[in-house]
Amino acid sequence: MVIAKRMEPLVAGSSIIRKLFEEGKEMAKKVGTENVYDYSLGNPSVPAPDAVKSSIIKILDTEDPLFVHGYMSNSGYEEVRQAVADNLNERFQWQYKMEDIIMTVGAASGINDILNLFLDSGDEVVVFAPFFGEYRNYVITAGGVLKAVPADTETFQINIDGLDAVITEKTKLIIVNNPNNPTGVIYSGDTLDQLQKELERAEARIGHPLYVISDEPYRELVYDDNELPFMPAHVKNCLIVYSFSKSLSLPGERIGYIAVSPKMDYYEEVKAGLITTNRIGSVNAPSLMQLVIKECLNERPQIEVYDQNRKMLYEHLTALGFECLKPQGAFYLFVKSPIEDYAAFVEEGKKQHILMVDASSFGCPGYVRLAYCVSPEMIKRSFPAFERLAEACKAMR
Amino acid sequence: MVIAKRMEPLVAGSSIIRKLFEEGKEMAKKVGTENVYDYSLGNPSVPAPDAVKSSIIKILDTEDPLFVHGYMSNSGYEEVRQAVADNLNERFQWQYKMEDIIMTVGAASGINDILNLFLDSGDEVVVFAPFFGEYRNYVITAGGVLKAVPADTETFQINIDGLDAVITEKTKLIIVNNPNNPTGVIYSGDTLDQLQKELERAEARIGHPLYVISDEPYRELVYDDNELPFMPAHVKNCLIVYSFSKSLSLPGERIGYIAVSPKMDYYEEVKAGLITTNRIGSVNAPSLMQLVIKECLNERPQIEVYDQNRKMLYEHLTALGFECLKPQGAFYLFVKSPIEDYAAFVEEGKKQHILMVDASSFGCPGYVRLAYCVSPEMIKRSFPAFERLAEACKAMR
Repeated sequence: MVIAKRMEPLVAGSSIIRKLFEEGKEMAKKVGTENVYDYSLGNPSVPAPDAVKSSIIKILDTEDPLFVHGYMSNSGYEEVRQAVADNLNERFQWQYKMEDIIMTVGAASGINDILNLFLDSGDEVVVFAPFFGEYRNYVITAGGVLKAVPADTETFQINIDGLDAVITEKTKLIIVNNPNNPTGVIYSGDTLDQLQKELERAEARIGHPLYVISDEPYRELVYDDNELPFMPAHVKNCLIVYSFSKSLSLPGERIGYIAVSPKMDYYEEVKAGLITTNRIGSVNAPSLMQLVIKECLNERPQIEVYDQNRKMLYEHLTALGFECLKPQGAFYLFVKSPIEDYAAFVEEGKKQHILMVDASSFGCPGYVRLAYCVSPEMIKRSFPAFERLAEACKAMR
Repeated sequence: MVIAKRMEPLVAGSSIIRKLFEEGKEMAKKVGTENVYDYSLGNPSVPAPDAVKSSIIKILDTEDPLFVHGYMSNSGYEEVRQAVADNLNERFQWQYKMEDIIMTVGAASGINDILNLFLDSGDEVVVFAPFFGEYRNYVITAGGVLKAVPADTETFQINIDGLDAVITEKTKLIIVNNPNNPTGVIYSGDTLDQLQKELERAEARIGHPLYVISDEPYRELVYDDNELPFMPAHVKNCLIVYSFSKSLSLPGERIGYIAVSPKMDYYEEVKAGLITTNRIGSVNAPSLMQLVIKECLNERPQIEVYDQNRKMLYEHLTALGFECLKPQGAFYLFVKSPIEDYAAFVEEGKKQHILMVDASSFGCPGYVRLAYCVSPEMIKRSFPAFERLAEACKAMR
């Protein structure tokens, strides 16, 4: 092996995911694409709003290409950052200045920028199970160590009671994903207040501040009368990481931002640091797309499409006896394996041509994740397969 | 301080660069923008070719937005990767397959992907002075240590004789930048053959393969009858990193690729590894721009504009007695400080409102870099200032 030791398991893990993907393709060849029920990927199923296309054309028609495609300040066009700050301040009654917004290559790069800034080799990052599996890869690549707080499988809120036991003097960062992938749960304002209190206790014990990454790609995907609390109003040292991937259906374009709360400890130092790590990581966020999102900050996703899928899938699966969390946000349904051998459950799903992700990779074995950002027709076609799956599970108990 | 120890000097260094930038802005306020001669930035001065705009519009008019802005395979659209491979094979008689091309967020992310794959904490990367200063930051951020081979100030070719002394058992990678930033020199095929021989000797000594990153953002910027050798034909373990920033004047868009030579040691392992680190770093390269560069692979920069600037500046400065390397490629002029105190030379330049970059940051003190990707008018306007600078230097000797 010539690659870094810490990267060997990550590369091997990638191959496993690819194997699943290949299995799906093989399955489609055998039984036809329309007979494979692929619930594995969180890829938006509604197209970008028309405003994206019209903004691109307007920008190309009216602006100098040296401006549109050229270098700007590494943290982004100042007018774009100002527009994002204004928009957040208006929506959430906050006090961001232009300089607090750093445009990034999607949320992934935003998280990497933060990890690269805070982590020396061996430093620790805490996540709450179930968590987006890629966090582990981000942390290891940055030279850090991921520590997971076990899931609170009663409420699937943040397991505050489990936090203190995993925080050590090496802990630098906490990652919170709200609304949560894979559960679809929204962490309440009350939960976040408790988190802040627990962090203060831990900071007094370990002698340095802890910073919370609030990963919010699903911010605009909230159902019924649920409300997403604005994290910096609850957590002092809060770094919001946002992506337009889901809200504007632009996942391929890699456009997002970090918002640095002016209330945080060492505010100036953290801000200067992130400007540096963002430059080192990718120079700047894609220029044309920065200008596009400025024009589209008030566009919202077609939530009714996802909501219809959510209700249809949730109702059918619960009627079949599956134990499901009712999603409050995002576009994932979290389902408990009806049999103890959850790997067998996932395999049995494949036999019915249903592709589900084993939640072991989210640090929460015993569950599966279904991504319902798919066509309503696929959901309907999959119902008989779920019925067969439910029957098969009864027989396996 | 709350940030990582290894990052402290990088953040501090950033502030110094910003200080220079702010000085330029202050200067422009006082004496007027047209009286500041800013040779500091490598930002293309010719706009993107018309084909970029027409391709964007064609793609938006004919393709599904879920395809244009959506996720694709993390390494890029297969048709884009195939087109890049075909284009390279045709131009350079090589044997890339689609899978050897990994689309990246510009060259910076490509280099970071490679560093993240190969480096465990404390591993070493070799560069040849003078080198693009950002390499140091990339290596440190990835947890590595940068080792610089001193410049061969006779020829400014790679200092092969100095290589063996810096390679240790911790060395994993070598970075070569061809055509070179900051010198404008092209490393010859003969130089690269010697490099390969020296690497083989070193590999035998340290017991593992060494990999060469060939950073080629200036590949299409070559003057007169110079030719850029195709690195993989000379160096076995070659990873080309390319960017369309300079060739298509798209620096803000962050679009480039890694080309993995099928002849390299552990070819499959490296390829699988880079697919993983590219995904972890930024998920994928920006989707629309991938589709655009596919349409524009045969577009070439307006080299005559840069060439005119090159000749004008080189001729004027040598006539004034400055010792300059005649650039063979890229858009930089490398000038020897006529006085021993090169920092005083840079300061004296500022007094004449000429902004030049002290080559200490490129690991080659005693020189400055002038970026001539500026308007020809600015160059002409700067001549009297250079005359005054030459006079001032004579008085300082």
